[in-house]
Amino acid sequence: MLLFFKENISPKGISYLDEDESKHCIKVLRLVKGDFLYLTNGKGALAKAQISQPNPKKCEIEIVDYQFTENNKSFYTHLATAPTKNAERIEWLVEKCVEMGIDEISFVMTKHTERSHFNTERIEKKAITALKQSLQTWLPKINPPMDFTKFIEQRTESQKFIAYVDNENTQTLFKAAKANQHYCILIGPEGDFSKEELQTALENGFQKVSLGQNRLRTETAGLVACCTLNMLNE
Amino acid sequence: MLLFFKENISPKGISYLDEDESKHCIKVLRLVKGDFLYLTNGKGALAKAQISQPNPKKCEIEIVDYQFTENNKSFYTHLATAPTKNAERIEWLVEKCVEMGIDEISFVMTKHTERSHFNTERIEKKAITALKQSLQTWLPKINPPMDFTKFIEQRTESQKFIAYVDNENTQTLFKAAKANQHYCILIGPEGDFSKEELQTALENGFQKVSLGQNRLRTETAGLVACCTLNMLNE
Repeated sequence: MLLFFKENISPKGISYLDEDESKHCIKVLRLVKGDFLYLTNGKGALAKAQISQPNPKKCEIEIVDYQFTENNKSFYTHLATAPTKNAERIEWLVEKCVEMGIDEISFVMTKHTERSHFNTERIEKKAITALKQSLQTWLPKINPPMDFTKFIEQRTESQKFIAYVDNENTQTLFKAAKANQHYCILIGPEGDFSKEELQTALENGFQKVSLGQNRLRTETAGLVACCTLNMLNE
Repeated sequence: MLLFFKENISPKGISYLDEDESKHCIKVLRLVKGDFLYLTNGKGALAKAQISQPNPKKCEIEIVDYQFTENNKSFYTHLATAPTKNAERIEWLVEKCVEMGIDEISFVMTKHTERSHFNTERIEKKAITALKQSLQTWLPKINPPMDFTKFIEQRTESQKFIAYVDNENTQTLFKAAKANQHYCILIGPEGDFSKEELQTALENGFQKVSLGQNRLRTETAGLVACCTLNMLNE
């Protein structure tokens, strides 16, 4: 099943793939007139379409079926992470979280964050690619970078966690989280959160949690957090 | 704490870093005479050493402390995966599994595996880098590619699982696995295992399991499996 992305999908009639998708469809995948493909808008729509004019810049299609599926997950995961110095690692994280299923991703600028330039558009494209590849129809909300304190103060999720590495016997995320909740899990940069940042989080209702015995990179920690919450809600 | 790798570590006296490590130590990290560093052999040894001659090709060090730690995990995870077409993805999987803690990694050549050339040495280097970065002292055993059936028939782990995607209500790995066991978890290629391969596995005591609702790439599946077993044994 080949899934393409289109922001606005008509329930029926003639339509066109975006330029990028047209090129991918006709030049890379080499689909031809008469072939069928699927479309999602990342907001629950799944349409089946048939190629009527295989133009590599503006592929014409006819919508033959259209369905909408509610996002009826019983839990909601919002992963907030400091961006990593290496952009590729964050892109991997986003790709993997989309595959595993995630609802919202935020990027938080902390004291020890080394990354000064952040390409939100590139991250969004990565998420869309992962969505298509994993045949899903609900794209997570991806938020641009935000100041740490501002982010902390705006949070309304029912269960809020900050992954923090210390020598105390901190409870794991798996033990601390309850099923069927709206979670926000905060992952720090390579240099970890500062003591002040931890304090601010605790004062705003965040619970300190561990992600296990081992020392994890930022993007690995994000993945483990996501996987943990999925498993809790199996 | 800067951790270097050396296959044979003397408990005391004068010693030398390997050429790669010497270069990294002196030219990249720019350590100097008198600086301290740590060494592991990936088999439980952790030595503290002081630089006596900062030669970038053969850095001379003096061992000042030496400790050995048993690998006393109560469970054992052997991840066996089909190699991915894209070598980078498998390297990424190995890096993440080492970070999260894994005991053994095997590569299994299945019917639908697209990868013909496999660089075990490169994978081992990646594992060592991840070991050092995550400050661990036990390197997982990494096995070269093996034929699927041969691999299946040799398995002696107490709990054996094969991740397989089908329309039946397959139990998740998390529910199927018991704590404190020796696990072998088999992950298929992008085209999944063939029906014959699944049958062979089932006949050899492997249990079919799901890794959740979503459609995961090979390397993501490997990670989720590893994370799941860790969590079960928290």
